[in-house]
Amino acid sequence: MSNPTAAIVIIGDEILSGRTKDKNIGWLAEQLGAQGIQLREARIIADIREEIIETVKHMSDRYDLVFTSGGIGPTHDDITTACIAEAFGRKVIRHPEAEARLIKHYTNTDIEFNEARQKMADIPEGAELIDNPLSAAPGFIVENVHVFAGVPSILQAMFEGLKDRLPGGVAMTRLTVQCAIGEGTIATIMETVQQTHEGVSVGSYPWFKPGQFGTAVVVSGLDAEVTAAAAQMLADGVRAIGANAQVMAPGETA
Amino acid sequence: MSNPTAAIVIIGDEILSGRTKDKNIGWLAEQLGAQGIQLREARIIADIREEIIETVKHMSDRYDLVFTSGGIGPTHDDITTACIAEAFGRKVIRHPEAEARLIKHYTNTDIEFNEARQKMADIPEGAELIDNPLSAAPGFIVENVHVFAGVPSILQAMFEGLKDRLPGGVAMTRLTVQCAIGEGTIATIMETVQQTHEGVSVGSYPWFKPGQFGTAVVVSGLDAEVTAAAAQMLADGVRAIGANAQVMAPGETA
Repeated sequence: MSNPTAAIVIIGDEILSGRTKDKNIGWLAEQLGAQGIQLREARIIADIREEIIETVKHMSDRYDLVFTSGGIGPTHDDITTACIAEAFGRKVIRHPEAEARLIKHYTNTDIEFNEARQKMADIPEGAELIDNPLSAAPGFIVENVHVFAGVPSILQAMFEGLKDRLPGGVAMTRLTVQCAIGEGTIATIMETVQQTHEGVSVGSYPWFKPGQFGTAVVVSGLDAEVTAAAAQMLADGVRAIGANAQVMAPGETA
Repeated sequence: MSNPTAAIVIIGDEILSGRTKDKNIGWLAEQLGAQGIQLREARIIADIREEIIETVKHMSDRYDLVFTSGGIGPTHDDITTACIAEAFGRKVIRHPEAEARLIKHYTNTDIEFNEARQKMADIPEGAELIDNPLSAAPGFIVENVHVFAGVPSILQAMFEGLKDRLPGGVAMTRLTVQCAIGEGTIATIMETVQQTHEGVSVGSYPWFKPGQFGTAVVVSGLDAEVTAAAAQMLADGVRAIGANAQVMAPGETA
């Protein structure tokens, strides 16, 4: 048996223009390597319909796994979803679960869940959602193509939640603790939790929305009980310094 | 009139394995953009003979300029030169000028100019040398393909010495409009601006920090006046819905 192969497709004019430096290829390359998945190729392409469709098809045929980043936001240049659907001959549908997550996310904020934002609930028919613990708008999987957001922190959080399901992945328990506090304030708590729970690792992903900010802390380990205890200790520690913290069920978003 | 197009090919297993983070794409993208050369695609491929030949041929046919990095050093896995020669049906020859530069470079050092290092004087027949002011071993140009070393400092020095000879395009006008509002709220404004200004493209980059958020909207085009008018319309539109917006001077940051 040989290791599964993979390719990365970065969809983004902002990278090609030089305005933004790509961080996703390097991060994903490391993650895939650690997981025994062989990254064979990475491409950065423009936000052009034909380019996206042709590239995704080619990569999907050629490699076991494809990961894309970028172009699933609310604006006119976010065309990835439509292109992926077309590449696989599928319709785009308004996904009820995705919509529910977005509605929940925007409730009690000053942000209107307008038509542009509703577009983020549109997913190719039959696709499986990828959780987004930071800003709710999900990624998705169609056949062997995994579609992530382009913002590095969101892509990383999406990948963390997904990686156990990839071929070659070790079955880890992975719990997200949503904390209504900045990551810098809870750095010591996170470090202590990691040090006192053998085999558990603690990663933090800060998020911001208008009037609110917080940190999604991902607690993961091979032993389900130890990992759950670690997540609980972390939540208790954050509450002890006066901030709200909640251990989420897998798939649940804030 | 359209600007010359370009593609980058990074040849390097070390990038795909995640061991090394690529710095060349971001740096070259910025340089090409500043020069009015339109970077259309970038690929990171493995050190595999067929991959290199096929990719270079494809890119050379498709774009005005191709830049490669990596694989021209002294070791067994440095196969770029042979592959480029084969892609263009040329022989590899020991280049007298390249050899003279290397001999001079290694004279009075403790480093032996051994067989492996002599290989760095092998160049496809008829190629033009690209100077390497750091470590002597030259890059080269075959047809529209520019072959650089992979080490970022060397690649940068090679490019600096070469860039005045590249076909100059018109530098794009690129204006950033800083908007104190989420991108989803101004999606329609951005789309309208793009549609009503021919040759102008509008991209949006949301940012968040504690207590604040906003969107940097980048308005770019070849025609400076049309682009400026588009940026102004966008700023006016954002102000009309009650949010602050400011057209930044090039290079100015918020």
